[in-house]
Amino acid sequence: MTKSRGYAALQANQPLQPFSFERRNPGPNDLLIEIQYCGVCHSDLHMARNEWGVGVYPMVPGHEIVGRVTQVGSSVRKFKVGDVAGVGCFLDSCRTCENCRAGEEQYCNRQLVLTYASADKDGRITYGGYSNNLVVDENYALRISPKLDPAAAAPLLCAGITTYSPLKHWKIGKGHKVGVIGLGGLGHMALKLGCSFGARVVQFTTSLNKKADALKLGADEVVLSTDADAMQAHANSFDLIIDTVSAPHDFNTYISLLKLNGTLVLVGLPDKISELQPFNLVLKRRSLAGSAIGGIRETQEMLDYCAEHGIASDIELIPIQKINEAYERMLKSDVKYRFVIDLASLPKE
Amino acid sequence: MTKSRGYAALQANQPLQPFSFERRNPGPNDLLIEIQYCGVCHSDLHMARNEWGVGVYPMVPGHEIVGRVTQVGSSVRKFKVGDVAGVGCFLDSCRTCENCRAGEEQYCNRQLVLTYASADKDGRITYGGYSNNLVVDENYALRISPKLDPAAAAPLLCAGITTYSPLKHWKIGKGHKVGVIGLGGLGHMALKLGCSFGARVVQFTTSLNKKADALKLGADEVVLSTDADAMQAHANSFDLIIDTVSAPHDFNTYISLLKLNGTLVLVGLPDKISELQPFNLVLKRRSLAGSAIGGIRETQEMLDYCAEHGIASDIELIPIQKINEAYERMLKSDVKYRFVIDLASLPKE
Repeated sequence: MTKSRGYAALQANQPLQPFSFERRNPGPNDLLIEIQYCGVCHSDLHMARNEWGVGVYPMVPGHEIVGRVTQVGSSVRKFKVGDVAGVGCFLDSCRTCENCRAGEEQYCNRQLVLTYASADKDGRITYGGYSNNLVVDENYALRISPKLDPAAAAPLLCAGITTYSPLKHWKIGKGHKVGVIGLGGLGHMALKLGCSFGARVVQFTTSLNKKADALKLGADEVVLSTDADAMQAHANSFDLIIDTVSAPHDFNTYISLLKLNGTLVLVGLPDKISELQPFNLVLKRRSLAGSAIGGIRETQEMLDYCAEHGIASDIELIPIQKINEAYERMLKSDVKYRFVIDLASLPKE
Repeated sequence: MTKSRGYAALQANQPLQPFSFERRNPGPNDLLIEIQYCGVCHSDLHMARNEWGVGVYPMVPGHEIVGRVTQVGSSVRKFKVGDVAGVGCFLDSCRTCENCRAGEEQYCNRQLVLTYASADKDGRITYGGYSNNLVVDENYALRISPKLDPAAAAPLLCAGITTYSPLKHWKIGKGHKVGVIGLGGLGHMALKLGCSFGARVVQFTTSLNKKADALKLGADEVVLSTDADAMQAHANSFDLIIDTVSAPHDFNTYISLLKLNGTLVLVGLPDKISELQPFNLVLKRRSLAGSAIGGIRETQEMLDYCAEHGIASDIELIPIQKINEAYERMLKSDVKYRFVIDLASLPKE
């Protein structure tokens, strides 16, 4: 087996702590990756604390992984030792359902193997990227261009693709108007990517403190969502609004800002949506949709696009010993805009 | 002025009764239509009883209108005296907003003049088709092919276009699977049209009594929506589900039947949607959308399509004196599938 070290939640109510475990031995199609950086996604916190009720413990979170390939199986074709590789939210999928065959593995109908706290095909529970190494089939690993700073690239594997995919799916480009709700890890990537696609991007925020930051990140306009007049001025005007907020909030107001055929797409995972007004959808053929990360092909496309256009996440690099503190700061939105763990900080044994 | 006779609700709490009123004199672009048939839409009942709170009284309902052109203005080009013409849910629109210019007048951003209980451009309140005549700009009238039975064609002007438009917008055809929720005026048209487009159509119903009828209308399968196993057998399989039901019901179950990129489209107008589960949308990039009738160009296309394919509404023809009874029967779903008023029954004075 492959010996691994990381940080784990041993139970839902415990802080993360050092943890040793084993991964499978790399097979002929596998890469062994020495992890250098791992982004800290808000869903890591939800999962570690079992807020979605699907936790499996001990749990090593982390699905925004960048590292160096240190070993390749005999059949590996796309990677060689020394390459920089990335791994996102999943490590494998059924490969045979219509969604997998369409390259939309993230929507696998049968068995999406998530990067942590998920049953792998051999039945073992997966452990994520808050650790020193990872074994992954080369078909589920991504190439990271040398043009990208590997630490700032890590969040692209979840926050980046989660916002890139809906912008592409809804064909956003020049002449379109895009709204972004929330300016955190996902929101700041939606803002950067939306602007880079040539769209006019409006950042919605509940706090005008964030105005200068949003403008610096490229927003064409910043709207205080609690200002009814400012909101009304944008009625019937958006092609797409990307909603990155998981906390309960009002959806009807945003839907009424969509133009004909416009879409409000959820990329966060609020518990539920209460009191949706159907009139708002019917009277302008608007849609409320959801979107989850992206497939391997599209994730690679996004990484290459970001490398070419100099786009990455704004990050705060932390040693792994600060992970529990980082979770507390995330809860207060005290991060611009993603914590990334420097795995060099992991004790050698 | 143009003298008119019809049936009106004088107040929200009163049955409809004979009513005389005036319409504008036909202008150079107007047609005067002698109404022969008018369909009875469920929204007529909501409006007459002010259940949506936007009623204006006296109210002459009716927006599924077919009749004969008896007079044309000097500038009229598309119609001549003697033609059979139709009028749907609106009589005019701003004509200048981007939606009007795109031929999607039903989504007009400024001033959609509804066929009844709505302010016309001259400020007069419009009166609908439960009456002997109508004045309408030729650009908002439809040609009714002699191949169509005019009585059975009347419901196409609302029930027909309301279900045709989403089938076209979501590009339904051969190889697609479409669900229809509700088998009433809208539902039976969604079923007929969906089948005619080559899709596999599944009728959802709460009552197996309707099974034989749905199969006769062309359904490939009928599913009892209260049978959890039968529903689960269709998980992840629908491209589009057309929801014609206005009464409160569960949406999450239907959304989970959609395949990747599938859409549940509301064409009824439920008051509100409670407790929508975002996971259901996000995990397969599904959409909950709404759709309202159709524009003039698309309505004409639909009428011509129906004429060519021998499609019309199943109707029960009634004299106008039975309108209040028809409303009561509609509330019990006791109609297959649309009441149509024969305006020849209207007293001459």
